[in-house]
Amino acid sequence: MALVVQKYGGTSVADAERIKHVARRVAARRRQGDDLVVVVSAMGDTTDELIALAHQVSPEPEARELDLLLSTGEVVSCTLLAMALKALGQPAVALTGAQAGIGTDRRYGRARILRVDPSRIRSHLAEGRIVVVAGFQGITEEMDITTLGRGGSDTTAVALAAALGAERCEIYTDVEGIYTADPRIEPRARKLERISYEEMLELASQGARVMHSRAVELGWAYKVPIYVASSFSDAPGTLICEGGEEMEQRNRVMGIAHDSDVGRITVRGVPDRPGIAAAIFGPLAEAGISVDTIVQNASVERLTDLTFTVSRADLKRAAALVEPVAREIGASAVLTDDHLAKVSVVGAGMQSAPGYAARMFRALYEAGINIELITTSEIRITCLIDAGRVPEAVRALHQAFELEQG
Amino acid sequence: MALVVQKYGGTSVADAERIKHVARRVAARRRQGDDLVVVVSAMGDTTDELIALAHQVSPEPEARELDLLLSTGEVVSCTLLAMALKALGQPAVALTGAQAGIGTDRRYGRARILRVDPSRIRSHLAEGRIVVVAGFQGITEEMDITTLGRGGSDTTAVALAAALGAERCEIYTDVEGIYTADPRIEPRARKLERISYEEMLELASQGARVMHSRAVELGWAYKVPIYVASSFSDAPGTLICEGGEEMEQRNRVMGIAHDSDVGRITVRGVPDRPGIAAAIFGPLAEAGISVDTIVQNASVERLTDLTFTVSRADLKRAAALVEPVAREIGASAVLTDDHLAKVSVVGAGMQSAPGYAARMFRALYEAGINIELITTSEIRITCLIDAGRVPEAVRALHQAFELEQG
Repeated sequence: MALVVQKYGGTSVADAERIKHVARRVAARRRQGDDLVVVVSAMGDTTDELIALAHQVSPEPEARELDLLLSTGEVVSCTLLAMALKALGQPAVALTGAQAGIGTDRRYGRARILRVDPSRIRSHLAEGRIVVVAGFQGITEEMDITTLGRGGSDTTAVALAAALGAERCEIYTDVEGIYTADPRIEPRARKLERISYEEMLELASQGARVMHSRAVELGWAYKVPIYVASSFSDAPGTLICEGGEEMEQRNRVMGIAHDSDVGRITVRGVPDRPGIAAAIFGPLAEAGISVDTIVQNASVERLTDLTFTVSRADLKRAAALVEPVAREIGASAVLTDDHLAKVSVVGAGMQSAPGYAARMFRALYEAGINIELITTSEIRITCLIDAGRVPEAVRALHQAFELEQG
Repeated sequence: MALVVQKYGGTSVADAERIKHVARRVAARRRQGDDLVVVVSAMGDTTDELIALAHQVSPEPEARELDLLLSTGEVVSCTLLAMALKALGQPAVALTGAQAGIGTDRRYGRARILRVDPSRIRSHLAEGRIVVVAGFQGITEEMDITTLGRGGSDTTAVALAAALGAERCEIYTDVEGIYTADPRIEPRARKLERISYEEMLELASQGARVMHSRAVELGWAYKVPIYVASSFSDAPGTLICEGGEEMEQRNRVMGIAHDSDVGRITVRGVPDRPGIAAAIFGPLAEAGISVDTIVQNASVERLTDLTFTVSRADLKRAAALVEPVAREIGASAVLTDDHLAKVSVVGAGMQSAPGYAARMFRALYEAGINIELITTSEIRITCLIDAGRVPEAVRALHQAFELEQG
């Protein structure tokens, strides 16, 4: 008899009927003998509706109160799921994040989990109950309620699985698993049976929306196997776990990621001297703008071009912050682009096997797609291309790396 | 500078606009210098909607989970009011019942407050904040969330006022105060400037719906002056407080109450011997049926008639419980009536001044209204009459006791 933590997302518990559907799935699983802890998100659009309500009473709702307000969404869904389970004859108990022992820091809206005290969950499990936990939330030492921000309920589930020593964490969502590419773009995309944490992180950071990086990182740190599958079907999903020996033998490209939310800023003619990067990126960090890829070309006559990307929504604000700095340091121009997108090939071991980059560039070239910028990590190669060419690029790369064959 | 606890009911915070209206009232009051703790109910019909949602997933929602679910309603309204106050430039903080220090027993759905730890509220007040508290809820020693049942938010407000030693507790609602009779029935009904706890309790228990007896009892026990007024107007309300010397001089009838939610059961020919009352009322108590008035006539040939009233909704169930007992003890018949109502005259000192009962009976007689049953307390005389005659009875009594004149 294993202990398993499951998580159901907002679309899976969007209304009473879907909650009852989830309850039937959970009850069936329980009857197979596993001990279950079930983490739930808020119903459907509840969180957005609560945010809208807050903005009706205040132009800038205070972070502490907003977190307390938003936390009610998951409390509602976890109590309803516990009730639905009991109506099926399954003993169950609903716990808030605080009751489940999720202790966080005080960073409202994006709190980090500092500790998990699973003693109450354990005692309910020992009584034979299914424990239903409100995701996305925790409590500070001062007894204030916090929310965990993006990917919050996934993070709750993985953190509980780690603290409880669960056999695995199962994330049920509205997709059937991790694919070699977005199936809406490449119909021949193949669902992966398993993928390493590292590869999953690269896919997630490059635009695959299935799971937030944060929960994957936590799973990796605590070696929690994470199974991603659909709550609407019984099709097998994808297991995110440590890359084993056998993975060395496989096709080293696991998948193609793409991300159209890219704004590019190029600072031309930057004097190549110490402190320049700090001068440019300092104001962006202070303004809370996340900078993604950064590329600095080799210096020619002590002048260089510095290029970086930000979320498209941040592009104008970022450019406005960079321009005065650029003038001050004597750069010749600041250019912005908002018609670009990233495509990436991701796979462990690519770096130790030559030829992957060349194959990628050739595939894009043969499809007539211009490469605007290239960056690589140990397990990823990313090209910036015209946003309008993303579907062709994904399909060309999927074929070039023979991903449909597994 | 006084400390005042205010409470706003569900209709007063029914939507974002009304919450902003309440925020403006609270902020204006704060600017006059008082320290404020503000207790709120859930927005409008939220509680009913949450109960309906629970019944969609379960025919019989578990009490513990239902309380946790319902508690979210007041958390939503208290965070929104705190945000609206901050938007007006007033420092404010929202607290759940647990954060406000409301400790209760484990009787889910009708928990009793065992203790109040006001230390967190005090420290926020010392920081110059308005403290907004979610009403109707508390927390057990085991960290489970409870709700206080009917009159819960009023009870929260009075309990906090008592624990904080507040100057008074102000209950803002959709009526303007306590009247000498229901103004919908008697247009000449007069709003009372003040009334004693005891008189308010008699009015409340006899059908005046403004405040629940429970909160009045608590206010009486801790000598908390309770001011009842409208959140929609600036008209002066009614102060519920201890009856002072000057009250002896006044008209001793304070008001006329009426209650049409009356079901009467009469057990005929009951043998007059010990243990009979326990045999009849025991099963009703076990079934959770509240018995109101009980009257037992003087015994004639060792047989008596026992009459009592229950809520009309409980009448059939109560009769079904009483019938087997009546057979067993040899009573001759069980009769039920569901066409009756109570009218009462309430006023401190009536008992020590003769003639009030006679004046009441004469007024009803002159209006041609038959009296089915009479009971009295120290400060109340109640007659059971035909439910269809209630408006006439209220108007006749209002005039007989010259209540329009104050």
